[in-house]
Amino acid sequence: MRILVTGAAGMIGRKLCDRLAAEGAIADQPIASAHFVDVFAPTPPADAPFAITCEAIDLASASAAETIVAARPDVVFHLAAVVSGEAENDFDKGYAVNLDATRRLFEAIRHERELSGGAYRPRLIYASSIAVFGAPFPETIDDDFLAAPLTSYGAQKAIVELLIADYSRRAVFDGVALRLPTVVVRPGPANRAASGFFSSIIREPLSGREAILPAPETTQLWCASPRAAVGFFVRAAALDLNRLGPRRSLTMPGFSTTVAEQIEALRRFGGDAAVRLIRRQADESSARIVSGWPGRFEARRALALGFAAESSFDEIIRVYLEEDHVVAVA
Amino acid sequence: MRILVTGAAGMIGRKLCDRLAAEGAIADQPIASAHFVDVFAPTPPADAPFAITCEAIDLASASAAETIVAARPDVVFHLAAVVSGEAENDFDKGYAVNLDATRRLFEAIRHERELSGGAYRPRLIYASSIAVFGAPFPETIDDDFLAAPLTSYGAQKAIVELLIADYSRRAVFDGVALRLPTVVVRPGPANRAASGFFSSIIREPLSGREAILPAPETTQLWCASPRAAVGFFVRAAALDLNRLGPRRSLTMPGFSTTVAEQIEALRRFGGDAAVRLIRRQADESSARIVSGWPGRFEARRALALGFAAESSFDEIIRVYLEEDHVVAVA
Repeated sequence: MRILVTGAAGMIGRKLCDRLAAEGAIADQPIASAHFVDVFAPTPPADAPFAITCEAIDLASASAAETIVAARPDVVFHLAAVVSGEAENDFDKGYAVNLDATRRLFEAIRHERELSGGAYRPRLIYASSIAVFGAPFPETIDDDFLAAPLTSYGAQKAIVELLIADYSRRAVFDGVALRLPTVVVRPGPANRAASGFFSSIIREPLSGREAILPAPETTQLWCASPRAAVGFFVRAAALDLNRLGPRRSLTMPGFSTTVAEQIEALRRFGGDAAVRLIRRQADESSARIVSGWPGRFEARRALALGFAAESSFDEIIRVYLEEDHVVAVA
Repeated sequence: MRILVTGAAGMIGRKLCDRLAAEGAIADQPIASAHFVDVFAPTPPADAPFAITCEAIDLASASAAETIVAARPDVVFHLAAVVSGEAENDFDKGYAVNLDATRRLFEAIRHERELSGGAYRPRLIYASSIAVFGAPFPETIDDDFLAAPLTSYGAQKAIVELLIADYSRRAVFDGVALRLPTVVVRPGPANRAASGFFSSIIREPLSGREAILPAPETTQLWCASPRAAVGFFVRAAALDLNRLGPRRSLTMPGFSTTVAEQIEALRRFGGDAAVRLIRRQADESSARIVSGWPGRFEARRALALGFAAESSFDEIIRVYLEEDHVVAVA
């Protein structure tokens, strides 16, 4: 089987590529070759048991979609996106990448399917986000709750979810949109996502560095580790998507916590010294964006389909320490 | 105030233009001029107290959006669309008109707003549809229920709803999407909407002609008259949209009935002779499309905002007899 990963140089993309290389197969089907693309060339995982092509391709450029679909990958992991903060600041860029380039990818698949006389119909797994939801919320959000995003990023993700359902219903591809929780603890330098501080207030103090908290401690988040997020993609790749019926968006499981609880967990790992490195500095823009995000889901459909995540913030910190923590050498 | 109506030659568009001409004002603001456009030139209403330009413009053609927005209309009624049956049969045409042309209209408004230094910000009222919903449903659908369309038409309407919320949130325009019930009784001839038979099984027998019923009598529908539908647009034009907050899609009020109940109402107006003119002829495609449509809503938000519709099917037939029934001359 051939696989394609877009956004392969991103934090979750890299980890997904590493995991696919380590497993060498999807649902017992060996991976024959992989195409990893991003705006910057991804680094190939070491010791993969299959051929890997890493390529720098901007999906927003002309014919990029046709190029990456020409080899007819059996599974497409579509992670490439302009993140929330940037999509909010740059209206045109957000729609150009998150909506238009994605739709061109879907159309390129449709074109290949027509060229193949209907034989080609890949599986498509899309990185959506709980940013498709917007306040006001019930205390716990069920799988029938409306998508009413409060950011352009969330709107773009919700639109692509509708396209995925329609293209899947029409059998262009067999798609699923995974609504990722806030993924923490992200390693290494912050990206421009509004949710970045949820990671930095843990990561930076654990390395003896200061971190800025721009939102109130009461801010609630629905979170999972990068390892759990990668697990969602791997699970979706192996799943019989017919079990989903026509509703192709799944809210992923996670764990509901608050910034205050994050800080207490940090104290258990890094002591008071670590907690003292968190500096409160209100930033209205970040605070407004994250305050419109949802804090607690049932995720009943995803749980029934075997998707799984952590159940405490201590677990999440432990995953970070195992996978990504870099100990500073004095 | 200047107004623009797209889809002005359609059934609801025509009635809306007539109503605007008769009233001459929106919320006590006199209408100074109107631009009525459709793929075929609309017929201007007689005796309008304002200047009217009727024009044949295909919104899917290049620069059409810029052309119709150049005069900076204060209120845009956007009704132009490829209907459900046609959008299902012609994937490309449905997306080209219902999504791409609509988005170009929104971008043209954004461009005019920039040219005006931020002064121009029209009100935009969009004809959405309960086709944004898809089975399975709870018995009564509330305003927080997810949009999960089962047709490309419904997907396109749901996508435009998300764009309207995002463009409104960013103050490009002040928009609202009205999710119209199934509008019955449509005057003839039939269009290519899958819901056409809900009208023809009343309209045709009342004129002594046969009508085909392609779906089971248990089929449930959420319906309102063309007069009520026009009333929704007029109400939305006068409403303070700030009361909506960021959620800019409103399920319109209506009346829940079944085909069997429609037929009994027909009997009260046209007797057994009329009912005998309904010929059952199962059509799987129509039946499948309408069986995925929802039958009963709360429409609580819209009712609280003063939107109103009929409360019995007899009332709906009476509206048809008053407004549109053509008595055949022997």
